[in-house]
Amino acid sequence: MTSLKKRILDRVSADLMEIETAISQNLNPHFELVSRVARHILFSGGKRLRPLLMLLSARICGYAKPDAVAFSAIFEYLHAATLLHDDLVDGAVLRRGQTAAHHLWGSPTAVLTGDFLLARSLSLAARTERPRIIHTIAGITEAMSQGEIHQLALKGNPEITEADYMEVIHRKTAVLFEGACRSGALLADAPEDAVSALGRYGNDLGLAFQMADDLLDYTSDTRVLGKTVGADLKEGKLTLPIIYALANTENEKNTFIRRMLGRTDFSVQDFENLIEILHESGGIDYTLKRAKDLVESAKKAVYRFPESPTRHLLTDIADYALARKL
Amino acid sequence: MTSLKKRILDRVSADLMEIETAISQNLNPHFELVSRVARHILFSGGKRLRPLLMLLSARICGYAKPDAVAFSAIFEYLHAATLLHDDLVDGAVLRRGQTAAHHLWGSPTAVLTGDFLLARSLSLAARTERPRIIHTIAGITEAMSQGEIHQLALKGNPEITEADYMEVIHRKTAVLFEGACRSGALLADAPEDAVSALGRYGNDLGLAFQMADDLLDYTSDTRVLGKTVGADLKEGKLTLPIIYALANTENEKNTFIRRMLGRTDFSVQDFENLIEILHESGGIDYTLKRAKDLVESAKKAVYRFPESPTRHLLTDIADYALARKL
Repeated sequence: MTSLKKRILDRVSADLMEIETAISQNLNPHFELVSRVARHILFSGGKRLRPLLMLLSARICGYAKPDAVAFSAIFEYLHAATLLHDDLVDGAVLRRGQTAAHHLWGSPTAVLTGDFLLARSLSLAARTERPRIIHTIAGITEAMSQGEIHQLALKGNPEITEADYMEVIHRKTAVLFEGACRSGALLADAPEDAVSALGRYGNDLGLAFQMADDLLDYTSDTRVLGKTVGADLKEGKLTLPIIYALANTENEKNTFIRRMLGRTDFSVQDFENLIEILHESGGIDYTLKRAKDLVESAKKAVYRFPESPTRHLLTDIADYALARKL
Repeated sequence: MTSLKKRILDRVSADLMEIETAISQNLNPHFELVSRVARHILFSGGKRLRPLLMLLSARICGYAKPDAVAFSAIFEYLHAATLLHDDLVDGAVLRRGQTAAHHLWGSPTAVLTGDFLLARSLSLAARTERPRIIHTIAGITEAMSQGEIHQLALKGNPEITEADYMEVIHRKTAVLFEGACRSGALLADAPEDAVSALGRYGNDLGLAFQMADDLLDYTSDTRVLGKTVGADLKEGKLTLPIIYALANTENEKNTFIRRMLGRTDFSVQDFENLIEILHESGGIDYTLKRAKDLVESAKKAVYRFPESPTRHLLTDIADYALARKL
């Protein structure tokens, strides 16, 4: 474990335990099967980052009531629902090193359990009785489904631009981070500029996280990643390192990248050659640079709050986005 | 067209036109593909019964503001979302006589467009800024997903009881009818007993509709039904006529029914023999009787309102549940 990760975990362990309990207690399904499938995805080593961000956002705005923890489960349910549907959409076999739910129980059960978790998160949202929080949460689901559809429509298309990529990861990832942070501030009845600042923090952090995640596909191995190496490429998911390299290589190298797109049968050697081109062309560095800028922007957003242990935590979490096994 | 159907349609044609516009205008997707898939399912000959019930429920409680029409689209979006996911879950090929969306665009797009419609309905619900309406709508989605999972878990199981069946159709169908009617009353700020009465009306009507729909599988042909004859049986979906017949036949006939369960390759002759057994054993009549009782109960629920054209419409719609091509 990196020391940054340990430093963060030491300070949030009590919160994480409460979040864990809230996720378990608010699930409340009528059927054993729903419970089993939902628990498989919910309790398979998620970081609980989204609920934690909501809690910390409420706290930095001075909110200390215990209902914040129950509401924080909303963001883990939403996250789990989209994982269930996305793994199905992507035909993924592994999720966090375990067999994906749709492989264990079949697509129908995975679709319906995802629907249940989506509905559960909205029921919890309704319990806040805060129209703006409910709006935010309904908006997250709309954005995420559209982000995934956009990604699907762009699958394997070498003409994808950086702007397309940013739009996709904004919708499919950043909107949920942004919504979690905003909802914390809204729960605290924070002033408008605090709501915006935390929304900005969440958005930029979410973008940086997704970029780091996309980089991992070209810098990590299966054991660390918990999924197949080169999985994004095999699924035709073109992320920033590839998009940049496509725009900044010529001749053989460009042709080589294009040939690799959407192939599912490439050799380890082919994949290593690709990674070398991603480095040479600047695709890896460029992605890292963009992610770093976003982390700085996220940190800057919370500097409007006075210094406090919670603010330190939020900035450490932002740094952690890029400190994962890259 | 039956004269009852015509009599109903004559009185609601203006409402239906407004509902049609609301469904189209509130869809608001960012992507052409989402729009295309959503429109395929939304504009393929749906009866708009659920939005209509919401409108009429608001009206019988004295509500006349135009926003009721916009909110009524919620119930068609919810309905369409579950159709998209259920057709996928059931592996259905046809929907209302047209190729099912997952066959035209693939499962991923069907899953994600369903998610979008679900999210859209909840965004619209949030716009009512009425916590009880939002609760009701989130609850509908939870119940529907669980009803489908329950149905899936019972697939092909000859031990299914009438109570199981009633629980499944309550969740997967009646809760949406009930929620549409309740939401209309809630929008009108109607007194509690009016909300309950309309909820009861919707619930009983929904159950009767589903029973009638399940009967159609054994009394209709493909052209009328817009789906494959014997589709429920082929999917292992055991409905009341079968459940009753299983409990009320012995020896060869009982064995014959059990042999038919879950088979996908039965001949027309086999299917006709099955239908004969369903008649002989009383399975058809019993289902019809139960549905009729529910229609009467639905009508009784709205008799608490003074006589009016809207009340007439609601009771006519209840009668229509059983007047469809049976």
